[in-house]
Amino acid sequence: MQERALSLKSGGKTISCVPTMGFLHEGHLSLIRAARPAADVLIVTIFVNPTQFGSSEDLSSYPRDLERDLALCEKEGVDIVFAPATEDIYPEGYSTYVEESDLSSGLCGAARPGHFRGVTTVVAKLFNIVQPDSAFFGSKDYQQSRVIMKMVRDLNIPIKIEVCPIIREEDGLAMSSRNKNLDPDQRQEALSLRRALLKAKELIKSGEAIAPIIRKAMEEVIGSQPQARIDYIEFRDGETLKPVDRAGEGTLIALAVFIGQTRLIDNLIFRSKNNLDPGAR
Amino acid sequence: MQERALSLKSGGKTISCVPTMGFLHEGHLSLIRAARPAADVLIVTIFVNPTQFGSSEDLSSYPRDLERDLALCEKEGVDIVFAPATEDIYPEGYSTYVEESDLSSGLCGAARPGHFRGVTTVVAKLFNIVQPDSAFFGSKDYQQSRVIMKMVRDLNIPIKIEVCPIIREEDGLAMSSRNKNLDPDQRQEALSLRRALLKAKELIKSGEAIAPIIRKAMEEVIGSQPQARIDYIEFRDGETLKPVDRAGEGTLIALAVFIGQTRLIDNLIFRSKNNLDPGAR
Repeated sequence: MQERALSLKSGGKTISCVPTMGFLHEGHLSLIRAARPAADVLIVTIFVNPTQFGSSEDLSSYPRDLERDLALCEKEGVDIVFAPATEDIYPEGYSTYVEESDLSSGLCGAARPGHFRGVTTVVAKLFNIVQPDSAFFGSKDYQQSRVIMKMVRDLNIPIKIEVCPIIREEDGLAMSSRNKNLDPDQRQEALSLRRALLKAKELIKSGEAIAPIIRKAMEEVIGSQPQARIDYIEFRDGETLKPVDRAGEGTLIALAVFIGQTRLIDNLIFRSKNNLDPGAR
Repeated sequence: MQERALSLKSGGKTISCVPTMGFLHEGHLSLIRAARPAADVLIVTIFVNPTQFGSSEDLSSYPRDLERDLALCEKEGVDIVFAPATEDIYPEGYSTYVEESDLSSGLCGAARPGHFRGVTTVVAKLFNIVQPDSAFFGSKDYQQSRVIMKMVRDLNIPIKIEVCPIIREEDGLAMSSRNKNLDPDQRQEALSLRRALLKAKELIKSGEAIAPIIRKAMEEVIGSQPQARIDYIEFRDGETLKPVDRAGEGTLIALAVFIGQTRLIDNLIFRSKNNLDPGAR
């Protein structure tokens, strides 16, 4: 893959890239559609990265369907799918990691120790292999997109990072490969994440700014679901990811909730004027 | 610098690179002479990297002379010297590090905690900025060269690492920018590092293989110097850097010794046939 990418680059071609863990959904496809016109060659990577899963997490149950993914990529005009084996990415004796230590703390970084070290390491590796000019990430993983942007800036990686809006099901559930692991009851309960975010938005619009009060209202929305267990609900500055006590323009409201065994995340950046999901700016 | 490097690359030029901390000596010049014919464009970087110095180490007394370095580079036909300011490499809020955790342990990694994290981080950054096809390192810093080779392999960085032999003064002292900080008495005592290595070589050639016995003989050579204080004397496999109890073919013998306030290192890889310094293979 690297030889092919370097040969494309030396032949004057530009490359755009969408790194994924596969089991592609409309969220991924929206990234692919954004990346398609951005370069001569579009490469999608599919790799369920073990180093970003904790030992008690859902690596083994993470959904996979490479045949279906390949068919979807073909339909979307993807030029190359890079789907390496785990031992190709992490051969025996592997010992080098890339770690961002500021934006990675808190939120999913606190709930999932080592998670972002796994993300930054594999993304740095995939960038070196695929040699893209631009790479596209979704903002459901808002903190991830910020951590990757910081890594790219800090390490002087000459790649443009594009962050695209959250794509949702018609009923508002944020698209996620993990949604497949929800049974019908859990699927209904999963709507509480989005409902809690909309509740927060409504409160802020009506003049409430105190984060603990808004959090309490969100907890009530989610707490009414029998299988839901809140991992975190946090209020952060949308740019710096620093915690804020008062919610307002540009505040990131992010939450992670277990529905049964499945951990789901969602977020929203509050805009008084045009309150779109993050990324749609 | 990065724009210029990317433009050279897209114009079909190859780039070789010699990363240094400046105050160039014959060791650096040997790297420059090896790198000169390796590519169309030769870039030397000069950056005294603060993140590879411990808080009690000699960052402030590390010798610097940019004017002299530039003149030497010009004379050697270097095309570009990249000498960034500290705040350009580590701007405020910098938070991303590259860490190799296997070969970095022990030897200078044990004596200088965080040292190799600083080295791998700055080298990864310089590689991204300078975009070389090949990079040249000296084997006085033998462990460093191995750590960098491991980082490059692990992170899939498409750069060839070349390791060149130690260059010595006529009396055997390994060239080092830090030699400048030795007074005339210390300069004489510094010869004990090489003498201890030659003593080890002689013992192994005469049939002695037991590392503690050889170490004891080396300690005696150095211990006779009034201002010398041994930091470490170690026996390692030259490829894996794993500690060995018995010295023989391919064994790395590495030592670090303080002469007064100045910490010096030197090493040798034992070869029964053609016992050159490491790198000259």
